[in-house]
Amino acid sequence: MAILPHWLVLDDHLQAWLKEDIGRGDRTTQALGLSQVKGQAELESKQLGIIAGLPVFARIFNLLEPTAQIEYLLKDGDRCQPGEIIARVVASMETLLLGERVALNLLMRLSGIASLTYTYAELIADLPAQLVDTRKTTPGLRLLEKYATQVGGAVNHRLGLDDAVMIKDNHIQAAGGIAAALEKIRSEIPFTQKIEVEAETLGQVQAALAAGADIIMLDNMPPERMNQAVEIIRHQRPAVTIEASGNITQETIRTVALTGVDYISTSATITRSAWLDCSFNLLAEVS
Amino acid sequence: MAILPHWLVLDDHLQAWLKEDIGRGDRTTQALGLSQVKGQAELESKQLGIIAGLPVFARIFNLLEPTAQIEYLLKDGDRCQPGEIIARVVASMETLLLGERVALNLLMRLSGIASLTYTYAELIADLPAQLVDTRKTTPGLRLLEKYATQVGGAVNHRLGLDDAVMIKDNHIQAAGGIAAALEKIRSEIPFTQKIEVEAETLGQVQAALAAGADIIMLDNMPPERMNQAVEIIRHQRPAVTIEASGNITQETIRTVALTGVDYISTSATITRSAWLDCSFNLLAEVS
Amino acid sequence: MAILPHWLVLDDHLQAWLKEDIGRGDRTTQALGLSQVKGQAELESKQLGIIAGLPVFARIFNLLEPTAQIEYLLKDGDRCQPGEIIARVVASMETLLLGERVALNLLMRLSGIASLTYTYAELIADLPAQLVDTRKTTPGLRLLEKYATQVGGAVNHRLGLDDAVMIKDNHIQAAGGIAAALEKIRSEIPFTQKIEVEAETLGQVQAALAAGADIIMLDNMPPERMNQAVEIIRHQRPAVTIEASGNITQETIRTVALTGVDYISTSATITRSAWLDCSFNLLAEVS
Amino acid sequence: MAILPHWLVLDDHLQAWLKEDIGRGDRTTQALGLSQVKGQAELESKQLGIIAGLPVFARIFNLLEPTAQIEYLLKDGDRCQPGEIIARVVASMETLLLGERVALNLLMRLSGIASLTYTYAELIADLPAQLVDTRKTTPGLRLLEKYATQVGGAVNHRLGLDDAVMIKDNHIQAAGGIAAALEKIRSEIPFTQKIEVEAETLGQVQAALAAGADIIMLDNMPPERMNQAVEIIRHQRPAVTIEASGNITQETIRTVALTGVDYISTSATITRSAWLDCSFNLLAEVS
Amino acid sequence: MAILPHWLVLDDHLQAWLKEDIGRGDRTTQALGLSQVKGQAELESKQLGIIAGLPVFARIFNLLEPTAQIEYLLKDGDRCQPGEIIARVVASMETLLLGERVALNLLMRLSGIASLTYTYAELIADLPAQLVDTRKTTPGLRLLEKYATQVGGAVNHRLGLDDAVMIKDNHIQAAGGIAAALEKIRSEIPFTQKIEVEAETLGQVQAALAAGADIIMLDNMPPERMNQAVEIIRHQRPAVTIEASGNITQETIRTVALTGVDYISTSATITRSAWLDCSFNLLAEVS
Amino acid sequence: MAILPHWLVLDDHLQAWLKEDIGRGDRTTQALGLSQVKGQAELESKQLGIIAGLPVFARIFNLLEPTAQIEYLLKDGDRCQPGEIIARVVASMETLLLGERVALNLLMRLSGIASLTYTYAELIADLPAQLVDTRKTTPGLRLLEKYATQVGGAVNHRLGLDDAVMIKDNHIQAAGGIAAALEKIRSEIPFTQKIEVEAETLGQVQAALAAGADIIMLDNMPPERMNQAVEIIRHQRPAVTIEASGNITQETIRTVALTGVDYISTSATITRSAWLDCSFNLLAEVS
Repeated sequence: MAILPHWLVLDDHLQAWLKEDIGRGDRTTQALGLSQVKGQAELESKQLGIIAGLPVFARIFNLLEPTAQIEYLLKDGDRCQPGEIIARVVASMETLLLGERVALNLLMRLSGIASLTYTYAELIADLPAQLVDTRKTTPGLRLLEKYATQVGGAVNHRLGLDDAVMIKDNHIQAAGGIAAALEKIRSEIPFTQKIEVEAETLGQVQAALAAGADIIMLDNMPPERMNQAVEIIRHQRPAVTIEASGNITQETIRTVALTGVDYISTSATITRSAWLDCSFNLLAEVS
Repeated sequence: MAILPHWLVLDDHLQAWLKEDIGRGDRTTQALGLSQVKGQAELESKQLGIIAGLPVFARIFNLLEPTAQIEYLLKDGDRCQPGEIIARVVASMETLLLGERVALNLLMRLSGIASLTYTYAELIADLPAQLVDTRKTTPGLRLLEKYATQVGGAVNHRLGLDDAVMIKDNHIQAAGGIAAALEKIRSEIPFTQKIEVEAETLGQVQAALAAGADIIMLDNMPPERMNQAVEIIRHQRPAVTIEASGNITQETIRTVALTGVDYISTSATITRSAWLDCSFNLLAEVS
Repeated sequence: MAILPHWLVLDDHLQAWLKEDIGRGDRTTQALGLSQVKGQAELESKQLGIIAGLPVFARIFNLLEPTAQIEYLLKDGDRCQPGEIIARVVASMETLLLGERVALNLLMRLSGIASLTYTYAELIADLPAQLVDTRKTTPGLRLLEKYATQVGGAVNHRLGLDDAVMIKDNHIQAAGGIAAALEKIRSEIPFTQKIEVEAETLGQVQAALAAGADIIMLDNMPPERMNQAVEIIRHQRPAVTIEASGNITQETIRTVALTGVDYISTSATITRSAWLDCSFNLLAEVS
Repeated sequence: MAILPHWLVLDDHLQAWLKEDIGRGDRTTQALGLSQVKGQAELESKQLGIIAGLPVFARIFNLLEPTAQIEYLLKDGDRCQPGEIIARVVASMETLLLGERVALNLLMRLSGIASLTYTYAELIADLPAQLVDTRKTTPGLRLLEKYATQVGGAVNHRLGLDDAVMIKDNHIQAAGGIAAALEKIRSEIPFTQKIEVEAETLGQVQAALAAGADIIMLDNMPPERMNQAVEIIRHQRPAVTIEASGNITQETIRTVALTGVDYISTSATITRSAWLDCSFNLLAEVS
Repeated sequence: MAILPHWLVLDDHLQAWLKEDIGRGDRTTQALGLSQVKGQAELESKQLGIIAGLPVFARIFNLLEPTAQIEYLLKDGDRCQPGEIIARVVASMETLLLGERVALNLLMRLSGIASLTYTYAELIADLPAQLVDTRKTTPGLRLLEKYATQVGGAVNHRLGLDDAVMIKDNHIQAAGGIAAALEKIRSEIPFTQKIEVEAETLGQVQAALAAGADIIMLDNMPPERMNQAVEIIRHQRPAVTIEASGNITQETIRTVALTGVDYISTSATITRSAWLDCSFNLLAEVS
Repeated sequence: MAILPHWLVLDDHLQAWLKEDIGRGDRTTQALGLSQVKGQAELESKQLGIIAGLPVFARIFNLLEPTAQIEYLLKDGDRCQPGEIIARVVASMETLLLGERVALNLLMRLSGIASLTYTYAELIADLPAQLVDTRKTTPGLRLLEKYATQVGGAVNHRLGLDDAVMIKDNHIQAAGGIAAALEKIRSEIPFTQKIEVEAETLGQVQAALAAGADIIMLDNMPPERMNQAVEIIRHQRPAVTIEASGNITQETIRTVALTGVDYISTSATITRSAWLDCSFNLLAEVS
């Protein structure tokens, strides 16, 4: 299961996106008097993939016409085959034509992300390590794209700059060392938040451990060093969470997972995913 | 040259995207007192590609700190090499760390689009046909992604449902034929707008011509039929603009261009592009 | 038929206008406990004119009370007589009193525009030339006022700076001539947009023709020169659309139309129209 | 002197109005590279009238370009002659062309209102009665149009439903009489607010006096009855303010003023005013 | 009775406050699948006090779930006992848990204000003087906190800087005297607004009377001086409203009221009130 | 040090609060022509307390007048004495009078919270336990009120429903036990977030420990039971953070702290704090 925020949080975005496309109005559809003509449309997959975003897809039509009806043949997280019907929408032809582009753009983008995430996640599915995403998300779509990675099998990393602390080398340098950085930060953040520290060397790993980091991110470490780092951490403070990051590809991910880290983060599932091709077939009017 | 709208139009979006990432505040950076520490950062390309979005990248930092300074070593539309420095930013460390993620997410996304667009455009650069985009854009980024395709060498198709008329088969069916559809629509739209009609068969091409379409889109036509369509149109109404659409790939685009159409549209440059990988290297403090 | 954008586009404006009038609340009505008292009101015309804005008038009450009921005795575009009942509203007395002022202000303003537009349009109704509006509209009411001119019998000119190109003398001067201006602009705009060029002299008409303008606006030309211009254009490029503009009055419009231009634009139907006087008669409570 | 609210209150509106016109961007101007070309424009009156709205006119350009400079040759409230230069703007050509339409639309609308208000106000300038406006204002422009009536010589009536109480016949009927209505309302409103009661008959005037109204509006009374009403009020409660309303025209206003009322309200200065025609002449570049 | 503005005015605020608490989503509740589980909650008072804000409390849940049902056992203005059930809410468990904090924060804050206001108001309940509030309200809650003082038995003072005029010593000093200040201001404000003048000395009282103030505020006057001031005003202009202000406590308020002033203003009911403690008991699922 | 979010996050709120007070404009100040008159004001404390909110106080004036100057004599967190000058503002008289009320309302509210927080914090200042706040904050002021508790010496608890997980009895009941609840939730939240579990009995403490809670909140436990709970947790999983909650008063807080818990949470510092009384003395014009 993956979790979308309440519509109270999302609706403003969905409406803004509809307005972006509609602009000053869709006179083509309106001139033909299609607001009174009932229609039906099928959402069809053109590719193998993992579907993500159906509730958002449906919401677009309901924002235009509260009584629009959506029938789901698949649900988020399901695998779709080329040619498979994913959902059906019954609404006025005007609603179908007004909402089509935005609804599909969202669904295809999110399904593309879920599909690529799934590919990565499957490669380590039998291992304890879990795939996580990053903050490399399309501006404005943070919550939806992070939802899509969840659908694809990943766990979310922090959602913004404010819901967990990530201390990078620049912070460490500015503070004069890991211990100094953690001390300054810990008293200023909600005590309910975890602190993650980035480490590229074993020395930094030791410093992070000593300073009491909750999570240590092993950044761009070669496999051997990563093995050592995991061993050190597990030995000294087994409760610390270990994340591996940097140059994670479909070729390398399993090797990394085998080091015993808890989480493996990659932006690739978002930044390198293509949209999942779907079509929206408007059928004869509903009689 | 490609054209971004006035900041009056874009700033609301940029600010919303910063807030999406910042949430309730970046206490990590603030706790270290970095608002008074001046820093410098280099934007470095990690891949070969075409840069797009530098003015937006810079604006992000200026919204956070009006006196932040950006030095451009490349400009939008330039080709970048792996390892090449694209720009330098001088601002407070706090500004650099607060704006980094959003600025890079935008620049990498837009440059990825420009780069793939360029690849397509180059394939037909010696022919009169021009590449155009579609309305398959990431919700919320319509104007920026259409800017990126311009940077990459494409011409924009319509920007929304409202700035030109596109009559598709559903419209035609609902209106009872192309002629009927055009007649109903023409009197309702600004007379300054063009009407485009989608045609899959030669019969539809003839009907579109007869009904006075300004642009005819040859949709998913096999090359031979497309050749015939172009010939018919050029013969009967040479002022009509011809657009080819459907299954445009790097393999097929040149064949299509050779039919003599004016424009070739594809969503691939946006929906299939990966982000152009860049890094943002924070350097030692400016003294 | 004239076309209003989807409520998704208009509702934000309507709500803002209600809030402008309501401010911190209408305690007069509320103190009397009128939210539970059902009432009925008649919208009555006090003048001869053309009604425009009834859907917006009704929407105001529905935004305040979703179950408010509006019965239409006339529809937009109909001619109303003094004393004629246009519509009836059944809602709580609170809703009627809260919405009255904004609903009437809109309806009277729009009907005034439609009425004056109708007067102009009738003068050339038997000729091919059509009346068009301009961008001289009340800030914030662009879409509604352009709707009203449609209701009155005009065709819309462009809706904003972005949905068609209008090249004026300042642009031409800045670019170094019409041809140079068109060349620079054509590659930067969506290929789906038309380019209109303003011409005051026959030389400018020739230059606009040569440069490939889609529409030529004959600006402030005396009738004889306008006749010549139309002749030149029709002879050289019959597909070009011709617009006449400048000093269009009820006295001159027919002469201009007889020159054979396609469109005649005037801001007078908006800038010189008075509101159509209407009253809103609250009747005894509905039992 | 007339008073505009702080820009903090107005700027959101001005920006929204600019965006209404700019839409997705003014590519015509931008394609010609006019952001770097400095220009100058003259605001010229084409008619005799009273100028209103110059600070708003100027603000439009400053929102687009903070360093745009406006030189005023006249100020709000001044009488302008046909052909007279009102102000000069120095800014980039892009700013001048982007802001021109919205700035002029506002200035011409507001000056039209001020001019007609002035005509009415002059007719009673030697008498104690003062002209006041109503809530019949263009939705969204309440504050600006009420500013324009002030510029023209009127005093403002209440600004919305919330800053004073106006008890009309419907309220009275619903409450079961004037006394009952005032009693219910008085305890619910801020004690700093005045209560105005509408009266059409002398009986209603007496009831309003007895109930303690602060202001009595004599609505649609024939002159003789109005004389009697004024006499009754002045005799019984001289501190009560008297407003006359209904069918106020340039022909009747002086007669009404001679009855001795304090204020005469009419919506005509707003609902029947035409825009004051002005032109915006772009001059050669500033060297 | 106290009056809340129409939901059209309040809903934006309520939604913003829900979003403030929900942020990027309440995954705790959502992960447990509680959107489909119906629940019931009791709002229970833990203290003696006066309830205020029940309609707002209920609206919070209805914004999250339009069909949420609220049963009122008490209504605003009622006195509640410790342990008394005030209302019951039936909705999905998700809605109850999402809305709980915001709904309670509002109700407890407003009830705290109403309770303290009631305490003050009761001390002078048998005297003609009435308690009024001030503009010392929590930013963003002006309308709701002023509603709460009404519920507690106070009358509202002006709602903002714009719905009545308050002339303080700084204004008087800047204008060069009370008379000069009133003259300048009176012509610039809506004639429907009252003017209040602050006076600390009997000389200022005399000047305010002479200048025609509608309301005179006796600011920080010792009782004897206040008695004299009241006598002077009542004698010279009995229609003038008198407000006493400054150092109003539960100990002093009755003495002040006995001077015969009309209104006594204090910010204490808002600035010194503690929240009324309530609990929100979620009960077993509704079967 | 306490941390305010970037102005990019706060400015929208500050502007909305100014507009709440200004409404349709402050004509009193404007009529006197005070925008050109420079003034100076002193912010003076009338009570002993801890100052909080000075940057926000200053920002209010700078939003009205960017060049307004604020001189700080104290800074946030400093103790102020009655009669002590805290800061001076130099700006136009109009700015001072427009911003005064909102600036003071914020400063007095936040300083009241900081002062009461300080009182609580001092009682346990020599012990390791730290004071924390809750989500009982005034709607709209969450970030500022949590800032004020920081200034007063507290550490923040979670900032909203989304930046940490708090599992309460309702969640546990709905999920069928603590272990089941944690298992369902853990896979759905960002792995960077901590999970806190509420426990009222020692059995619940054991269950929370077994299920792997990061933080255990001992809710409403009598001291003896709390001692046992602390002992159990420290013995079994020393890395677990312990929070005590429920009925924390100035009388009980030290006893609770002595049990050895890490954090003690109370809403009292916000819900029971009175505003710190301050005055804003406008001085003679700056020459």
